[in-house]
Amino acid sequence: MLEDVSRRIGRNAILLAFTNEEGELSLKKELAKLGWSYCQGKVGAMELQKIVAAIETSAKRQGIVNHDVYREMHALYHAILEAVHGITRGQVELGGLLRTAGLRFSIVRGKPYEKEAEGEWIAVALYGTIGAPVRGFEHEAIGLGINHI
Amino acid sequence: MLEDVSRRIGRNAILLAFTNEEGELSLKKELAKLGWSYCQGKVGAMELQKIVAAIETSAKRQGIVNHDVYREMHALYHAILEAVHGITRGQVELGGLLRTAGLRFSIVRGKPYEKEAEGEWIAVALYGTIGAPVRGFEHEAIGLGINHI
Amino acid sequence: MLEDVSRRIGRNAILLAFTNEEGELSLKKELAKLGWSYCQGKVGAMELQKIVAAIETSAKRQGIVNHDVYREMHALYHAILEAVHGITRGQVELGGLLRTAGLRFSIVRGKPYEKEAEGEWIAVALYGTIGAPVRGFEHEAIGLGINHI
Amino acid sequence: MLEDVSRRIGRNAILLAFTNEEGELSLKKELAKLGWSYCQGKVGAMELQKIVAAIETSAKRQGIVNHDVYREMHALYHAILEAVHGITRGQVELGGLLRTAGLRFSIVRGKPYEKEAEGEWIAVALYGTIGAPVRGFEHEAIGLGINHI
Amino acid sequence: MLEDVSRRIGRNAILLAFTNEEGELSLKKELAKLGWSYCQGKVGAMELQKIVAAIETSAKRQGIVNHDVYREMHALYHAILEAVHGITRGQVELGGLLRTAGLRFSIVRGKPYEKEAEGEWIAVALYGTIGAPVRGFEHEAIGLGINHI
Amino acid sequence: MLEDVSRRIGRNAILLAFTNEEGELSLKKELAKLGWSYCQGKVGAMELQKIVAAIETSAKRQGIVNHDVYREMHALYHAILEAVHGITRGQVELGGLLRTAGLRFSIVRGKPYEKEAEGEWIAVALYGTIGAPVRGFEHEAIGLGINHI
Repeated sequence: MLEDVSRRIGRNAILLAFTNEEGELSLKKELAKLGWSYCQGKVGAMELQKIVAAIETSAKRQGIVNHDVYREMHALYHAILEAVHGITRGQVELGGLLRTAGLRFSIVRGKPYEKEAEGEWIAVALYGTIGAPVRGFEHEAIGLGINHI
Repeated sequence: MLEDVSRRIGRNAILLAFTNEEGELSLKKELAKLGWSYCQGKVGAMELQKIVAAIETSAKRQGIVNHDVYREMHALYHAILEAVHGITRGQVELGGLLRTAGLRFSIVRGKPYEKEAEGEWIAVALYGTIGAPVRGFEHEAIGLGINHI
Repeated sequence: MLEDVSRRIGRNAILLAFTNEEGELSLKKELAKLGWSYCQGKVGAMELQKIVAAIETSAKRQGIVNHDVYREMHALYHAILEAVHGITRGQVELGGLLRTAGLRFSIVRGKPYEKEAEGEWIAVALYGTIGAPVRGFEHEAIGLGINHI
Repeated sequence: MLEDVSRRIGRNAILLAFTNEEGELSLKKELAKLGWSYCQGKVGAMELQKIVAAIETSAKRQGIVNHDVYREMHALYHAILEAVHGITRGQVELGGLLRTAGLRFSIVRGKPYEKEAEGEWIAVALYGTIGAPVRGFEHEAIGLGINHI
Repeated sequence: MLEDVSRRIGRNAILLAFTNEEGELSLKKELAKLGWSYCQGKVGAMELQKIVAAIETSAKRQGIVNHDVYREMHALYHAILEAVHGITRGQVELGGLLRTAGLRFSIVRGKPYEKEAEGEWIAVALYGTIGAPVRGFEHEAIGLGINHI
Repeated sequence: MLEDVSRRIGRNAILLAFTNEEGELSLKKELAKLGWSYCQGKVGAMELQKIVAAIETSAKRQGIVNHDVYREMHALYHAILEAVHGITRGQVELGGLLRTAGLRFSIVRGKPYEKEAEGEWIAVALYGTIGAPVRGFEHEAIGLGINHI
């Protein structure tokens, strides 16, 4: 793993997903200094496609990805799917198994490797709760997906 | 999700997995104040059973679980498996797919819910890298599993 | 496995799922003698969430679980999911793959282990048919999930 | 589901897997009367391939399948795999996830459908325990696979 | 693998899926000479059940399978499911993960093995694109399922 | 899907996997004309890691990927894994489920999209047989994985 903790793109994404627009200000400053882009958001749903759509929309609107270029959307999509695995832990399904999720998410795009040729990577982090559609009958869940972009 | 951030057992476990014995001292104090138990460790392997074994051994030695009681080991085991899903994101396999993982882990046991009847829960967090068995050809991965105990 | 066959909670659950309210009377007497609780039901659906809901509702109504306590519902939920794996054998999906299931189910709650510290466990058994949404184009399927509670 | 309970090939297979050579004598008589073939066996392993091999060997030796004909072995193999799903409930893996299984199995071959054109089918049932490689730290598991042959 | 390339049922099915009614005429002649049956079709959907249904309907209408016989439909269904795995590569889901597929399919039924006892087998091939519900944001995918019938 | 058939990277990869160094010469000429790179190979194994390794080694030796750059190896690795899904159709496992595979593979790297910004993509195709470790007890299988690189 990179010695330089500030370049740990996955860890950074998780810390952003733990907070909201007001939190982790020093981390955000560091990301800005590195020239990395990021965004944060929130989504609650019983349907995974709504979660995927919310993250994609946020990434496009905040300019993290170029929505005219399929290769960027392809990289993002697979990072989202991988993050979803951590949330669902076995069956990539929510409502169909009578459960729901309330999540904060973050997306970070940057260059985590020292070698220039490694180029840009994207990290998607999810943090929140998953459980029955009954208030309070839920526990925390987390997911992280990383892909080259 | 609990308003009281200090009782977010999953978030706490992740933060512990991000650090080592010397880190997150204020968090550790808070856990101690709550009367919760926790431990941290490190494991690198191409075989998932070694990762499972390392976490189980640590939990037993540090007294997080009572290793004479199957129900405690059963709760821990399923929390570990769920955390592994976040690391492997699709195929619960490492060496068999020619990849390896280097992980920090943490286990936290406590009462995340305000209602006394909810009793104790256990969280297992994993953080590190996964990738080819080639130095540096790896990216970060994270996993969290939570179970009632 | 326990020498004492009457305490085999999974086997008991399966035998109950094979029958209805009128069947397995001697087994039911034995369960009553042990102080274990159980219930039986029936559900047919192309949507897994309906099957999950039917089992949860039955367990709550018959008092097998305390529906005010999340840890009990969490234990039950995971036992149901595990039982569903035996029914679906690979893809945890019904209608989405154009198939339907007609099932009898049973839930048994008791102490299968001799050691007092092992406490209570819950078993969910499913038995019925799975197949195309065409009468008779189906074969049998079975599933069993067991969890500490 | 067939009205005629004696022709429920899956239920019959499960009942045989619950017992040994000495048990379920009246069921065995009924199977004989129907002209169906069956066998029973026992296998304990941390490796799934050993379980698959034990069932295949038993089926060949007892003449349940013709081991010179691939289509028969193909039908049996998929029935075994489906039964294994019920045992492993999510990850088709034992030792690689640090767990072991001790199982009784049965294979039944017969004609469960009234219509002659439906021909022969094969059912593989598994029943036993799965758990940590520690005596007693295990719970029951069951699996059933059915295929046309 | 069979030396006789013309009897490679899977390869033949793929080549048919690559083309339409007008293509692969020499292959079709060879299949006719062998006495094998086949059909081709096209389906686009965000729901897997529509894809399964389209293939089943085509197989029934073109007389590739006898739709009155469950064992034939069972063989076809599992061949379809196996082919779908190649298309979805991990999560057997389309719209639920916000993706869609546009596919050509083919079904071939014949005797790929020299030994008479091996009887008939069925191959289902899928070829097309999978991707976001945005024109052009898609890449190719392929799937093949083979079963004894 | 691209109107221009010659740019269908997945179809091209499959056709290459169907043949050997001597076959598909006109296709190879077209690929050369497009400036795309490709390679072919052969691997038989009961262990998936050997299959992954054989494909990676071939891609490195033939210069299809730059083995000093992790992002290229990462793109290739995920394309291989996706192709393996088509071969294994459900459980990403061979020997652990007592089966073996004999495969031809091909890798194609090129620009399948007309838009320059879409850049390079990589396709991995697998074609061969999967079955019991008994000569002739096997049927065909196919897999295709595509990724941006």
